[in-house]
Amino acid sequence: MPLNQFAIIESTLREGEQFSTASFSTAQKLEIAGLLDAFGVEMIEMTSPVASPQSEADIRTIVSAGLNARILTHIRCHKDDALRALDTGVHGLDVVIGTSPQLIQHSHGKSIRQIVDTASEVLSFIREQAPDIILRFSTEDTFRSRESDLLRVYLAVADLGIVNRLGVADTVGVAQPLQVYHIVHQLVRLTMLDVEFHGHNDSGCAIANAAAALEAGATHIDTTILGIGERNGITPLGGLIARLYTLDRAYVAKYDLGLLPRLDALIADICGIPIPFSNYITGASAFMHKAGIHAKAVLADPATYEILRPEDFGLTREIAIGHRLTGWNSLKERAQKLGLILDDDTVRAVTQEVKRRADTAPLALHEVDALLQQAAGI
Amino acid sequence: MPLNQFAIIESTLREGEQFSTASFSTAQKLEIAGLLDAFGVEMIEMTSPVASPQSEADIRTIVSAGLNARILTHIRCHKDDALRALDTGVHGLDVVIGTSPQLIQHSHGKSIRQIVDTASEVLSFIREQAPDIILRFSTEDTFRSRESDLLRVYLAVADLGIVNRLGVADTVGVAQPLQVYHIVHQLVRLTMLDVEFHGHNDSGCAIANAAAALEAGATHIDTTILGIGERNGITPLGGLIARLYTLDRAYVAKYDLGLLPRLDALIADICGIPIPFSNYITGASAFMHKAGIHAKAVLADPATYEILRPEDFGLTREIAIGHRLTGWNSLKERAQKLGLILDDDTVRAVTQEVKRRADTAPLALHEVDALLQQAAGI
Repeated sequence: MPLNQFAIIESTLREGEQFSTASFSTAQKLEIAGLLDAFGVEMIEMTSPVASPQSEADIRTIVSAGLNARILTHIRCHKDDALRALDTGVHGLDVVIGTSPQLIQHSHGKSIRQIVDTASEVLSFIREQAPDIILRFSTEDTFRSRESDLLRVYLAVADLGIVNRLGVADTVGVAQPLQVYHIVHQLVRLTMLDVEFHGHNDSGCAIANAAAALEAGATHIDTTILGIGERNGITPLGGLIARLYTLDRAYVAKYDLGLLPRLDALIADICGIPIPFSNYITGASAFMHKAGIHAKAVLADPATYEILRPEDFGLTREIAIGHRLTGWNSLKERAQKLGLILDDDTVRAVTQEVKRRADTAPLALHEVDALLQQAAGI
Repeated sequence: MPLNQFAIIESTLREGEQFSTASFSTAQKLEIAGLLDAFGVEMIEMTSPVASPQSEADIRTIVSAGLNARILTHIRCHKDDALRALDTGVHGLDVVIGTSPQLIQHSHGKSIRQIVDTASEVLSFIREQAPDIILRFSTEDTFRSRESDLLRVYLAVADLGIVNRLGVADTVGVAQPLQVYHIVHQLVRLTMLDVEFHGHNDSGCAIANAAAALEAGATHIDTTILGIGERNGITPLGGLIARLYTLDRAYVAKYDLGLLPRLDALIADICGIPIPFSNYITGASAFMHKAGIHAKAVLADPATYEILRPEDFGLTREIAIGHRLTGWNSLKERAQKLGLILDDDTVRAVTQEVKRRADTAPLALHEVDALLQQAAGI
């Protein structure tokens, strides 16, 4: 499958609600879903209607909003949960059950045989009730589950012939890219079903794992805006975009990339968190060049040290010059911008003076400008 | 090589200084280096002495501080830079030259043959001057360089028989884990030299790439505290620790993990940036459990949803309960902590009331406590 045929399951309104400071009002959910829809995500996943009365009402509201994105909700593998979810008119159900020894023991206590039976029963029930609903079955904590257990469960579910998609979930953030590739590739080969990857970021591989899943033939990737979710979160929407863009810009050309800064800012604002300095694309210094060697090359051709083009996201690059690592090419560029005519030796001398002063504390741009103007006799 | 024989080249005092808001005073460098040394990093890389007068003086200061960590500095492939660096008494020189078409064109203009000649000349000169210095040669922008160019350069340099280590650098943050594995494995096989990986995080794979490098036989990984560096930075120290810990805690047992929160807080404080909410291990919600299903299982056994033990880092877990996703197991645990005797039906009723109220806005812990106490007739 060409990589650009993947779809994003945007889970800010489900996984994202599990982030410590996230609690979205109906109006906020509408704003988030609307902006995600404008960005172009294919599916939006919402908190289970079983969670709370407002959670249930909000699914109805978002379903009624007439977005292009399909609206999904995420439920336990229970008939009662399924009935509550079906009643909302949602377009798809994401059904999940734990398969790792840890979750079997402490979450539901079912054996693998019982998991197979329960899944078969609940999924069949859902399909009877809703012949056209998008139906996904996922294991939970897939990467601490025994491979033989996973295959027993997935192959039995696939054999029902009624689910649209299988989910693979790195619930605790422990998976490695090759492991993800391996299990996804196996499911694609064995079942021919769509495969979804959901990855937590506890050990920093959520983006690499999502990319590995797509390479292996996964069709759907779960994201949240800024990556918010349980603990330190999951694959961030912007991070997934950055990864795919750097592989081939065509993979993400279907999305309105210029909306990414607004999406990130919206969630930061609602959750009362700053956008991390290290954030992909929209972090404050994502397109800031500082060391003299970098600045020199970027001034000649931004592609030297930029693998993403800021203008594709409605952003601009910045070259920092008032610091001890500065180089004379940055100062020369600045002098030209100010309309000053200075020979190279003079620019070099000003550069040394900037470095000397910046050794105590960085200089503001107007201080650098003053030194250049002074050198030009202004 | 067993993974626990790798070494960290901690570059907060070099790459980290290239972060937008980083400008370290001598006292701050001493504090950072001292804490890194106590943590147990094997090497500390510092800004080139050519950058500024204070940069040069600070290398001497840190070298004289008598740390266990070896002190390195990072220089261009120039004899003049090398002489300045050697004069500081530093323990190792990290020499770098660009090999990608982009950097060849806009950084130094040399052909591959000229790069080989220059590297041979400069490295031989350094080795003559300093027979015992730790000498590293790295290409820059390795992952946009032609593989044939890389091999010509690395094999010629290895053949000199005078360098201790080869460096592989994902300068623009574009590499994928399998690519990193491939080039590192090739260098290990062909040269038998130590291999270092330096990875930027523009597309979110800096940690996965570092782990892939180690698996391929790399001996050294570059990190900075919180990942600060050019643009959105490189492999964060805490992120690398999280990744290796989750593979096998023994890999990182040689470090004083309890110092990680102080290291992250120190850099956040000096650089005037908040620790990102999504930060590995030390992010505010890294050990926060929120959804009822998660909380229930974590109360039974933290390993259900925690792949890292907070206590190993001097941290504690937290279970959030005053929100719409809460579950009755969390409320039951809280009631027990408060010494309240409530039957399960009552706890379930209180849980529904918490969900109902939290649908408007999350409840503070004292508000949840009040509801429990009220139910207990207190």
